[in-house]
Amino acid sequence: MWRTGATLVFGAGLGAAASRLLSAGGWREEGGAGLMSRVPVIPVPGVPTVQASELQVSPVSSGAVMKYGFPSLSNIKTRESYVTSYDPRTRTASWVIERLNPASLSGLSDRKYCEFKEDDSVHVFHRATNADYKGSGFDRGHLAAAANHKWSQKAMDDTFYLSNVAPQNPHLNQNTWNNLEKLCRSLTKHYLNVYVCTGPLYLPRQEADGKLYVRYQVIGRNHVAVPTHFFKVLILEQADGKGVELRSYVLPNEPISEQVPLERFLVPIETIERTSGLLFVPNIMKRTAGGVRAIADR
Amino acid sequence: MWRTGATLVFGAGLGAAASRLLSAGGWREEGGAGLMSRVPVIPVPGVPTVQASELQVSPVSSGAVMKYGFPSLSNIKTRESYVTSYDPRTRTASWVIERLNPASLSGLSDRKYCEFKEDDSVHVFHRATNADYKGSGFDRGHLAAAANHKWSQKAMDDTFYLSNVAPQNPHLNQNTWNNLEKLCRSLTKHYLNVYVCTGPLYLPRQEADGKLYVRYQVIGRNHVAVPTHFFKVLILEQADGKGVELRSYVLPNEPISEQVPLERFLVPIETIERTSGLLFVPNIMKRTAGGVRAIADR
Repeated sequence: MWRTGATLVFGAGLGAAASRLLSAGGWREEGGAGLMSRVPVIPVPGVPTVQASELQVSPVSSGAVMKYGFPSLSNIKTRESYVTSYDPRTRTASWVIERLNPASLSGLSDRKYCEFKEDDSVHVFHRATNADYKGSGFDRGHLAAAANHKWSQKAMDDTFYLSNVAPQNPHLNQNTWNNLEKLCRSLTKHYLNVYVCTGPLYLPRQEADGKLYVRYQVIGRNHVAVPTHFFKVLILEQADGKGVELRSYVLPNEPISEQVPLERFLVPIETIERTSGLLFVPNIMKRTAGGVRAIADR
Repeated sequence: MWRTGATLVFGAGLGAAASRLLSAGGWREEGGAGLMSRVPVIPVPGVPTVQASELQVSPVSSGAVMKYGFPSLSNIKTRESYVTSYDPRTRTASWVIERLNPASLSGLSDRKYCEFKEDDSVHVFHRATNADYKGSGFDRGHLAAAANHKWSQKAMDDTFYLSNVAPQNPHLNQNTWNNLEKLCRSLTKHYLNVYVCTGPLYLPRQEADGKLYVRYQVIGRNHVAVPTHFFKVLILEQADGKGVELRSYVLPNEPISEQVPLERFLVPIETIERTSGLLFVPNIMKRTAGGVRAIADR
């Protein structure tokens, strides 16, 4: 089912909107049947041990925001509502992790009090500004979503740092991407905690000469990279404490009809791991009783 | 002289071979006179303090390979002959630092005993292989050069890890780039130590629609990124111990006539700092008595 080597396999396939990419080569789609049956489940041995060294960022519960580890260890920043790894070359995050549960979703915070702001913890050479986005045609797309953090105005405010933002197609941001964010929130009704890791991708395409190229726009004076795609990796803690489910999505940074079901954008986690340079599974395995077999087979 | 904000200024200008890039916009060339007078000098207070926490990799002397700090702290690997930061997304290093002096350049090591090899300290998802390069049309271009480390066969062998390699235009690799490596070695006659930091760049160009795009090829099953340019930053310790000179070069990853003098590829360090996402000057300033003024003015 899963390929070894470097072939990138989209198990559940990209959605219709991404067919251009798929047909351009460099990507291969497998059969589309039984999408959800591919969602891997990893058993957890009772209450998993939380490493003392792990960061505690959410006061709404005693758990760490990323008890299943970090996908990389570069330029880590901790905020009220998330932990992030910043990429100073692209001027946006490599990933942002947050933890959602009913408590984090409820509260009186209001985004009308929030403003997008420069992250002055980033060197001025490598920092995005509001001016970079102005007139670019791209939205300032949240990676950790504002509406996930109603529990504290500060937590919501912190999602407005431009280091938690990437240039996003406005139609995508306001429609299908918004639906994916809503899905993440709705999953808190069925799972103990929903860990969400979001980030940009810069995927290659085959061009007319038959070769593969990564090509992405950069905007503004600071050359903020416009991702070709975005990923979301969901780590879902089962309410009975017996297992962890993984769901991973890749959406192209372009308009997507809301008619396309979100399941169409499910991909094997390996696809994201290969293309992003990040690793999720080894960290999760270390913190659960499951073997690799549990990842690949349901 | 130096711009604030995001305008990228090539103080000494790129060479003729890079004029296509310059004319394409997104880059601006300043006047070409007095090239060498722009090379910044930073005074050092006697013998600079070496932090105990710094890595000691070269047995040929007691100094650290990078007593002036690291340009980033992501995925650091130490080898016999260099320290490097690996970028798992591009499958090549972000930078490699080595220290040259007459002792490191002399010895009986021979590259006929060396073979390019996978770096198995890198996860298989993010690792370049020899097969990726085969038939690609690109050389396996050393970042830390083999001939810089004749002092130990192990040190030379370590330069053959594919994590110390990037896809390089063969003509560039075998001519102008080779000349730049020779220049680095020849500078050991005039300086106490020559610290060399080398890495890839992925620079944007203006396309027909007037917008800026980063575009680079990826090769092989593992999608190894082909840099658009390479940089070399030289930190030159003056023999009298009174100062440190900085020289920084950017060369396009394409054939360059050997008629073009290497001075044509000198750029202000700020250019490399902005585009690479790395920082050199703050680290150097911390370890020297010089102020920022010493960097900008001779």
